[in-house]
Amino acid sequence: MKLNIALLAGDGIGPEVIDQAVKVCDAIAKKYDHEISWKPALTGAAAIDAVGEPYPDETHDICASADAVLFGAIGHPRFDNDPSAKVRPEQGLLKMRQKLGLFANVRPTFTFPSLIDKSPLKRDRIEGTDLIILRELTGGIYFGERGRKDDGNTAFDTMTYQRFEIERLARKGFDMAMKRSKKLCCVDKANVLESSRLWRETVQGLEKEYPEVEVSYEFIDAVAMRLIQWPKGYDVIITANLFGDILTDEASVIAGSMGLMPSSSVGSKVSLYEPIHGSYPQAAGKDIANPLATVLSAAMLFEDLELVTEAEEIRRVVNKSLAEGYVTEDLADGGKSFKTSEVGDWLASNI
Amino acid sequence: MKLNIALLAGDGIGPEVIDQAVKVCDAIAKKYDHEISWKPALTGAAAIDAVGEPYPDETHDICASADAVLFGAIGHPRFDNDPSAKVRPEQGLLKMRQKLGLFANVRPTFTFPSLIDKSPLKRDRIEGTDLIILRELTGGIYFGERGRKDDGNTAFDTMTYQRFEIERLARKGFDMAMKRSKKLCCVDKANVLESSRLWRETVQGLEKEYPEVEVSYEFIDAVAMRLIQWPKGYDVIITANLFGDILTDEASVIAGSMGLMPSSSVGSKVSLYEPIHGSYPQAAGKDIANPLATVLSAAMLFEDLELVTEAEEIRRVVNKSLAEGYVTEDLADGGKSFKTSEVGDWLASNI
Ligand SMILES: CC(C)[C@H](C(=O)O)[C@@H](O)C(=O)O
Ligand SMILES: CC(C)[C@H](C(=O)O)[C@@H](O)C(=O)O
Repeated sequence: MKLNIALLAGDGIGPEVIDQAVKVCDAIAKKYDHEISWKPALTGAAAIDAVGEPYPDETHDICASADAVLFGAIGHPRFDNDPSAKVRPEQGLLKMRQKLGLFANVRPTFTFPSLIDKSPLKRDRIEGTDLIILRELTGGIYFGERGRKDDGNTAFDTMTYQRFEIERLARKGFDMAMKRSKKLCCVDKANVLESSRLWRETVQGLEKEYPEVEVSYEFIDAVAMRLIQWPKGYDVIITANLFGDILTDEASVIAGSMGLMPSSSVGSKVSLYEPIHGSYPQAAGKDIANPLATVLSAAMLFEDLELVTEAEEIRRVVNKSLAEGYVTEDLADGGKSFKTSEVGDWLASNI
Repeated sequence: MKLNIALLAGDGIGPEVIDQAVKVCDAIAKKYDHEISWKPALTGAAAIDAVGEPYPDETHDICASADAVLFGAIGHPRFDNDPSAKVRPEQGLLKMRQKLGLFANVRPTFTFPSLIDKSPLKRDRIEGTDLIILRELTGGIYFGERGRKDDGNTAFDTMTYQRFEIERLARKGFDMAMKRSKKLCCVDKANVLESSRLWRETVQGLEKEYPEVEVSYEFIDAVAMRLIQWPKGYDVIITANLFGDILTDEASVIAGSMGLMPSSSVGSKVSLYEPIHGSYPQAAGKDIANPLATVLSAAMLFEDLELVTEAEEIRRVVNKSLAEGYVTEDLADGGKSFKTSEVGDWLASNI
């Protein structure tokens, strides 16, 4: 198969972890006889520095015409705590999501047998956790009208949802649930928000099309609690952009390490794959960042292109590196650890 | 001292737990020579049934002229999942907060030595946790404009904040931090929301008035994660209404039981004290609900009225009941347990 993959390394540790994913993908391509043509493009602070824009048109064109996008991380401390900064790296991320129509962020949460004791949660609470949070990614309060009034003394943001946006995401959730344990939980704040009531209405309307799926409706505050108390109670969770932002980060504590959690952002034409960790600027350039989340994101990429064996092979080699302790320092528990690039080389050579 | 306390039992287990708090308060009054005059009033589903309104004017008058309000819980399953219900118990809660001007919800999070192993979190992560979440309670997306457009196919909610609302809450946070470890964390989503940027601006503007307080600014998604990873990293957290709703429930897992966590909702004239657990309808009328959260809320009430010895006495007797296993079934670990009313009697007789 011929694959065109846009490669957005981004900021901080982005370039380093992306490099390892490229090595792994190239090894996969070699083994299974695919041809990957990588199309590097600028994003984030790197793009602001180069062309004054965190998601330049040229980058968009490269992504829009690719089969998939592999993404590192975005964000630079120089822009944080500076309310006056007019252009910010995160804007690039939001613009990219919107322009590419990446409406569904998929974040699987699971545990790794060899890492289960790294979690702040007790083993019996989390062992066997296998859930997916499906976050709406191109609507809600992220993209509604916002601004100031009264000489800047009043600020507002609007959480807006249209029925089709909810339905599109919910259908994806139902479809996923059908392939899994057939349990779907819609998370909202319908006891307060009108947009949540539209969510509930819309999802209720779809229930009859998926009679086998057991649907529940829970409030975001309760789920923020239950997700920690008993994550095994969930299978597929669907939720709005802001609630998903919060829940997906929260869920990452279950696995014990952000350095391992992959994600995809699915659009109707092209999809994007990225680790859930950020640009981690303190570690940038030190060759110490954990590349596994990015490598596992590449596995999701292959899986979505129906290259399931390839995806399984990547997961196998990642598990092998964990089992054999061929890991970066964040996972080494003070024991022997390896550089980012060494882990990448090891993974590629074990494929 | 003469005390007028409005007594809002509410729904579900509300009346049962409130009864125990009354016993405890009466025992305190007797011991320390106070005179409490209880003023019962209707709220929630109980009020809807009686007068068609979840927070009737009469109830408001009773609360507004009291020295403090002791509140049970609100909510009834009959109104859940019924998008057509015009009047809902929760509306009473929101109206009460707004009309009484209860702008700051104070939720302490701490661990009980005898219960630490009930938490889903590992002991070393939580032992010694002592933080307070200060949630803005009368603004934000709870009270902004909301509605439908496009024949009901678009729904919107508005998150609005005015500078004075933020400043009022932030000052309370700074004052609290000064009496504690002098650390304040402002939690927002300033990388996306304009209202969060106003929060950050306003809090930054106050920093110079409190030079001893170390202030940090963190994003809600990161905090949803860090609160579980390392709760001891926080002292006082200030945040908007919706974010606080989510974080306070999430924080309750640290203590291992919602049945123990008290809260206060502070206004400029009168304040309200309530357990953070809900109306728990499944347990209503069974005399099995844990009354300790309500009893500890009464301790916060005394403390705010500067009756510190009285508050300490309540906490002492609660700790004694935990240490001696004189507890309801939720805390009994399959061992001997006591009825709600028995626990109340025991507490009162040990004062
Ligand atoms: C950087 C930020 C705008 C972004 C978001 O809130 O969506 C991030 O937290 C994420 O989850 O990808
Ligand atoms: C019942 C609901 C409206 C309420 C809220 O969201 O404020 C509750 O969750 C709370 O935290 O007191």
